[in-house]
Amino acid sequence: MSLFQEDINRPEVLAELHALYPRYEQALVTNDVDTLVAMFWASPHAMRFGVTENLYGDAELEAFRKARPGTNLARTVKRLEIVSFGNDYGSITLEFERETENKLTRGRQSQVWVRFAQGWRIVSAHVSLLPVTTITP
Amino acid sequence: MSLFQEDINRPEVLAELHALYPRYEQALVTNDVDTLVAMFWASPHAMRFGVTENLYGDAELEAFRKARPGTNLARTVKRLEIVSFGNDYGSITLEFERETENKLTRGRQSQVWVRFAQGWRIVSAHVSLLPVTTITP
Repeated sequence: MSLFQEDINRPEVLAELHALYPRYEQALVTNDVDTLVAMFWASPHAMRFGVTENLYGDAELEAFRKARPGTNLARTVKRLEIVSFGNDYGSITLEFERETENKLTRGRQSQVWVRFAQGWRIVSAHVSLLPVTTITP
Repeated sequence: MSLFQEDINRPEVLAELHALYPRYEQALVTNDVDTLVAMFWASPHAMRFGVTENLYGDAELEAFRKARPGTNLARTVKRLEIVSFGNDYGSITLEFERETENKLTRGRQSQVWVRFAQGWRIVSAHVSLLPVTTITP
């Protein structure tokens, strides 16, 4: 078996991911650690490359979330793209901006979503920043 | 349908991805643009967040590859992780290092692989650097 054109972006699968993603964004900016942890795959194979850290396995992910200061997490999502493959796989990518003290930070986030018996989970994520831009007053 | 434990890291699927990935790495460090382009999904939904650029669609990806200088691409892969889901999906992540003029650059790469009728293709990728470390002589 392999994937065919009709398996890409099935409307019902896309709709599920579009409904789910905002819960992650909300949990992120409010530092709702329990929700963030619950949305990731509970597996030693889960992973996340963050802006300054590489995390492997649900235990490292959870420890990172719990230790993270809950400040300066607000951000504006600039471009959100969701692509689904078949019934059980999705790629969610976005660009974001964060403005703090005259400094505009631009970043990118990628997530791989997989549907398990217990629901959709993020199995892999990568967050990074683009070079800093100074805002001219 | 959803994913079960036995669908994770099926040995024959993992073996395929472990055999394929080195072709990408080889094409990358030799700047073999045709191979790099061919390994990505030929679709407007393909995407790649690079170190300094956000690319959407196969046309933008190809234009970037063709314009890129073919120098300083050598790198050492430090940790390669491949996780497969079912028969047709894989997440490939790695850490890399690049040493140039006393400067050690550490980066991360994530790729989502999907099996289509024509074979495995990268549908989404994200490459980023960690903060620079200066090597003490």
